[in-house]
Amino acid sequence: MIKIAIDAMGGDNAPIEIVKGCDLALEAYPDIELVLFGDEPSIKSLLKHQERVTVVHTTEIISMGEKDPVKAIRNNRDSSMVKALYSAKNGETSAVVSAGPTQALIVGAHLVIKRMEKMHRVALAPIIPSVDQKGRILLDVGANIELRPEHMLELALYATVVSREYLGVDKPTVALMNIGTEEGKGRDLEKETFKLLKENPQINFLGNIEGKEILTTEANIVLTDGYTGNVLMKTMEGTAKGMGNMLKEEIKSSFMGKIGYLFMKKNLKRFQKRMDASEIGGAMIFGIKAPVIKAHGSSNAHAFMNAIRQARQFVSNQVVEKVEVALKDIIIEESSDSN
Amino acid sequence: MIKIAIDAMGGDNAPIEIVKGCDLALEAYPDIELVLFGDEPSIKSLLKHQERVTVVHTTEIISMGEKDPVKAIRNNRDSSMVKALYSAKNGETSAVVSAGPTQALIVGAHLVIKRMEKMHRVALAPIIPSVDQKGRILLDVGANIELRPEHMLELALYATVVSREYLGVDKPTVALMNIGTEEGKGRDLEKETFKLLKENPQINFLGNIEGKEILTTEANIVLTDGYTGNVLMKTMEGTAKGMGNMLKEEIKSSFMGKIGYLFMKKNLKRFQKRMDASEIGGAMIFGIKAPVIKAHGSSNAHAFMNAIRQARQFVSNQVVEKVEVALKDIIIEESSDSN
Repeated sequence: MIKIAIDAMGGDNAPIEIVKGCDLALEAYPDIELVLFGDEPSIKSLLKHQERVTVVHTTEIISMGEKDPVKAIRNNRDSSMVKALYSAKNGETSAVVSAGPTQALIVGAHLVIKRMEKMHRVALAPIIPSVDQKGRILLDVGANIELRPEHMLELALYATVVSREYLGVDKPTVALMNIGTEEGKGRDLEKETFKLLKENPQINFLGNIEGKEILTTEANIVLTDGYTGNVLMKTMEGTAKGMGNMLKEEIKSSFMGKIGYLFMKKNLKRFQKRMDASEIGGAMIFGIKAPVIKAHGSSNAHAFMNAIRQARQFVSNQVVEKVEVALKDIIIEESSDSN
Repeated sequence: MIKIAIDAMGGDNAPIEIVKGCDLALEAYPDIELVLFGDEPSIKSLLKHQERVTVVHTTEIISMGEKDPVKAIRNNRDSSMVKALYSAKNGETSAVVSAGPTQALIVGAHLVIKRMEKMHRVALAPIIPSVDQKGRILLDVGANIELRPEHMLELALYATVVSREYLGVDKPTVALMNIGTEEGKGRDLEKETFKLLKENPQINFLGNIEGKEILTTEANIVLTDGYTGNVLMKTMEGTAKGMGNMLKEEIKSSFMGKIGYLFMKKNLKRFQKRMDASEIGGAMIFGIKAPVIKAHGSSNAHAFMNAIRQARQFVSNQVVEKVEVALKDIIIEESSDSN
């Protein structure tokens, strides 16, 4: 039985969609057991499943608008998020899923569960859509504003294990986000990271890619620092959303367009689904001693179930343990600014 | 008469589309005179206009695949690009338009025409699409890998003048690209730039924006460093292109979709046009003593004509002169790494 801690109060649609997502997951995966942290009366009134599920009452919620994540974690010891994290820290559960505020979850995972000894940085890694519909791991998208080349290597190794063990890719390939494809392009960070990736026998390095290849790259993993990755991911989201709105506007602008829409309604729905992040699941927090999955803040039941599926697979495929092995020969001096 | 130098051999479709674009521009704007640099026999065989146009024969071409821009400029003194730049430097023309390789044009503009005394960095600034169809100035997208906060301020001032004088915006607003909207977010670069922009009376600063607002932001100008800007712009391009391909695939995947397409063909064409960079014109190189416009490498005649229109407007609205005035009270110490 895989025991997963659920922050039942995190996200814009908590607890309703979260609890519904838990019901869906309990139905789909007979090998999981869920521990829901949150307001017991509301959760119990919503929950359909009775078996393989426990509810732990908590009184505080870390709100989505939280500006100071460190303070939020320290001052809300009885929040659903912090309690869920502690259950994983204490070995009562093996993973945590939350749709709560991203930075609070990253900081909380770090402060409560702690970093793996071999990982010097934690990273936030979503699976982004791709034209071939297989998805790509993008990291870091905001856990670290700045990274050193050695950290980038560690994160590439972590992502390689995840791609293999979780996404089932036989020989996962890594590309480095840059402003040109040739070696020697970019800032010092990219130049030095390029060398480290090229030299490491555990990494299948494809070289630099540019932003325009983000949906079409062959690489399974796209590596960048947290500042660039955050801007990149949000730009993809914003472009997709803006284009979707423009498409709607143009279709609605004429009678012929509206007629055409009636014919291709299904096609347009499928198109929309292909760019929809909720189909893919949550973002993974890499580098923590237990798997922590950040479901999208606006997760519906389906999206949240997908995030639970991810947590389950992380545990059953022993991703964290396999990362330990992959990193065992990598020696990185801890710098004083280590997070 | 506004005299504009044209690199007739630059870009994927040179010289045919370039010359056609010149013909279109000569027709549209009776106040311009063009000097075309390139292979005289081919140009003359293509050119329809006889008046207000001169052809200067050159023997070399800087190829689109050029990897070392400095060497390309230094070793190709008789290229169409270098000769066009020299004509502006010598005052024979007032602006340069080229669809040739971007980095070579930036480096060439810098080496040949030189930087304005008051500008410590040169920037590449395209006009990117926006949902409201007015366009936004994005900078820097790749002229500088790294920028200091003072350089960011200079570039914001330059862009403010361009937005007012060239795009006709009454009080241009500036937003800083960042990973969160609150003050204090981001790297040191963003934190310090935020302060400088907020304090400067010539800047209408709206604060930080995130990547997801790139198509919808109210700001007329979006400011970031050259590394981030390059990744951001190419990610927009790649997302738009990838989504366009997915949409096509989905429409073609069923009979109903194909029928629907027949009805909304015009709507989809308009949609495509709204994301099409060629409608907007070229990217501007900010900070050079004469306006230099970089037309897209794949420019057709229409796109190239738009780039000529931009150059014309830069000259007639005295953008460079007005930037000199805007910058006159800004004092920045020249650092040794100045480019």
